[in-house]
Amino acid sequence: MIEPQIPKGFRDFLPQQMMLRRDIMRTMSAVFERYGFVPLDTPCLEYARTLEGKYGEEGDKLIYRFEDRGGRAVALRYDLTIPLARVAAMYQLPRPFKRYQIAPVWRADKPQKGRFREFYQCDIDIIGESSACADAELLCVAHAVLQALGFDNYLIRINNRKILNALAERLGIDTARIPGFLRALDKLDKTGPGAVLRDMQAQGLLTGDAERIVREHLLAGGDNFEAVAALVSGSETGAAGLAELDLIARVLSADGVDGSYYKRDISLARGLDYYTGPIFEVVVTEPRIGSILGGGRYDGLIGLFTKQSMPATGISFGLERLVTVMEELGMHAQTNSLTQVLVTQFSDGLLEDGVRLAARLRQSGFNTELYPAPDKLKKQLSYAAARGIPAVVVLGPDEARDERATLKNMLTGDQAVLEQQHLAEAIRTMLS
Amino acid sequence: MIEPQIPKGFRDFLPQQMMLRRDIMRTMSAVFERYGFVPLDTPCLEYARTLEGKYGEEGDKLIYRFEDRGGRAVALRYDLTIPLARVAAMYQLPRPFKRYQIAPVWRADKPQKGRFREFYQCDIDIIGESSACADAELLCVAHAVLQALGFDNYLIRINNRKILNALAERLGIDTARIPGFLRALDKLDKTGPGAVLRDMQAQGLLTGDAERIVREHLLAGGDNFEAVAALVSGSETGAAGLAELDLIARVLSADGVDGSYYKRDISLARGLDYYTGPIFEVVVTEPRIGSILGGGRYDGLIGLFTKQSMPATGISFGLERLVTVMEELGMHAQTNSLTQVLVTQFSDGLLEDGVRLAARLRQSGFNTELYPAPDKLKKQLSYAAARGIPAVVVLGPDEARDERATLKNMLTGDQAVLEQQHLAEAIRTMLS
Repeated sequence: MIEPQIPKGFRDFLPQQMMLRRDIMRTMSAVFERYGFVPLDTPCLEYARTLEGKYGEEGDKLIYRFEDRGGRAVALRYDLTIPLARVAAMYQLPRPFKRYQIAPVWRADKPQKGRFREFYQCDIDIIGESSACADAELLCVAHAVLQALGFDNYLIRINNRKILNALAERLGIDTARIPGFLRALDKLDKTGPGAVLRDMQAQGLLTGDAERIVREHLLAGGDNFEAVAALVSGSETGAAGLAELDLIARVLSADGVDGSYYKRDISLARGLDYYTGPIFEVVVTEPRIGSILGGGRYDGLIGLFTKQSMPATGISFGLERLVTVMEELGMHAQTNSLTQVLVTQFSDGLLEDGVRLAARLRQSGFNTELYPAPDKLKKQLSYAAARGIPAVVVLGPDEARDERATLKNMLTGDQAVLEQQHLAEAIRTMLS
Repeated sequence: MIEPQIPKGFRDFLPQQMMLRRDIMRTMSAVFERYGFVPLDTPCLEYARTLEGKYGEEGDKLIYRFEDRGGRAVALRYDLTIPLARVAAMYQLPRPFKRYQIAPVWRADKPQKGRFREFYQCDIDIIGESSACADAELLCVAHAVLQALGFDNYLIRINNRKILNALAERLGIDTARIPGFLRALDKLDKTGPGAVLRDMQAQGLLTGDAERIVREHLLAGGDNFEAVAALVSGSETGAAGLAELDLIARVLSADGVDGSYYKRDISLARGLDYYTGPIFEVVVTEPRIGSILGGGRYDGLIGLFTKQSMPATGISFGLERLVTVMEELGMHAQTNSLTQVLVTQFSDGLLEDGVRLAARLRQSGFNTELYPAPDKLKKQLSYAAARGIPAVVVLGPDEARDERATLKNMLTGDQAVLEQQHLAEAIRTMLS
């Protein structure tokens, strides 16, 4: 006998969990399509060389890499962005190209609470458009998705790598050392301002008045955006970054997103090296579970795969955290069945009558199960109760002969004998 | 620069293909749910020991097996049945348990036309019910799915391992050699009757009158079911197998499945060793592309993972072949966009007006795109034409001032200036 187990960090989704996950994915798809995004899918397995070297040193270590039977180095998809960049380079796609993809990715991370080795990402990206209108649209979609899922306590944090680059320049940090500066800043929420400052000092980044500016404006929390904006507005890069954020705010406002849902935040850095413009993050403020969405503009990434230059921007929802919040806040009706009506089986002699009646109820639009074989009525009713099936149709010999059936309301316990032709109507009333 | 490539036997699905695939999966899910099946998902990665030794010698060679970073032998999912058997052994599930799963599987097979290394299976299974009513229900669902997808030229082939076992006994074949007998028979469609007979002879299976019976009744084609039934009806196993097929026919007929859609076929064997009862296959008869569905009862399989005995039966649709047929027969409208309305952008000064108008159209229920940045009108119209977006709303400065807009029908070329409040109604009329 083989012990039934799955690898650590991997999960089975039993029907009840699966129905919530599927509802979230359906809601997302519908909103994505409402804004003109189309679905795309890519293989779970890529050549290792496609993925390696794109996610930083730490990321590279987490790639599931192996040799296939032909000795080729392959790897499980680590995210949905690099595969999209490969796709954009490989095919002549109409541009702007707006795609969504909802799919699992794999990371050989240490499994811990809320962190898995296989998890779903839900991405939208716009390729071929350099205007910040595209970035703004992604945030409108993010807001619309969260509203559609019933979320209300969240904050969209917005910053711009151009502003951070201009700030680094103002602080006297060499271009080559900016990635180290950003990676230090990115740890702010995790390790706090003291640790970030020490990290920057250890890297030797802060000379002259830089330390004071970083301490007072970048790491102090609260609303420091305007102060930093004033510092960088003289730089061409800085001014361009500020103008993009203004454009984004105009679009969000015109789309009807209330100002309380988003905030410019100078301390937002995002971890990946490849961002070049606006960057985003959405945090749920109650319960405090951290970021449920991240993203930004990555105008140079597709250029790794093709000589054609292609601007691009995208965001990625983390499905697992959305599920966690919705479960914790009871935002979704718990159910372990989608069946509306159970038709019981009395005896082998009534098999055809049961099948026929169930078929008729399905034609009337009800998700209908025929209990799979004759059994004690009590057991069949327990089956319906355990699954939360609201209506049970009991079909005995007398009733079958008279083209009647007993309809039982599992919530109230009420039951009534009806003509079969009136069943659908009675069930519809019961369910409404 | 990295050359953008994907491994052989793997595929990207661009939006047009993806929309067809997704529509098929949605139709299937809806029918599965209509019959009371609930969704389940399992990890793409299993412990290698969970999968190995279940698919026969040839199958085992095709498993994508590798060591993870902790040195554990893991493998990519090869099908959806063994993971389900593991799940059934691992959790206390309410029984009968009716689940569906639509998900990719991986096989390190030689890539060739229509055969891929990553492909989707669409499975339904019923666990915990030994009555052939359960097997029959699977076939009712198969029929309902194919009808819902618009298929009509198909044949459900039905046989029973019990009948084949009884026949083997009648032919004087040892129990231990029955798997070899079935594997030989399973190649009939591929290699023809001569090759199958030679295979059986080479295995030394046919003594006495066995060769004549096999030649005349098992491999002759046409309707040999009754003749073989007469040969095995005296055996307890044979009689049980025949009774199960009778029950299945009663259910199919009561469910309204016309007799022309299914046929008992004594030469159907199915390749896997683990089947124990009724077995099925669906072939599309026009175009002749072979089997699009296979399955059967596997009462012993879950016992590999638990001491509890659990009867089970299931079928598996092959998504790739369904897609192939639907594309070849033009059974699905080709589209590369789901967008119904494009709102053009005239200038930066009209940005907010455009965003607001697009938001209003989305609220009226239309999938609406705002062109991502101001550009030449001609280019924006080409964008709509290339994607098959049927309605374009042109918003110029005069129109924006007067709360009007130009609605252009991209099919007819007609256009009219309308008040913005009447746009939704006019678009609805245009699209209907």
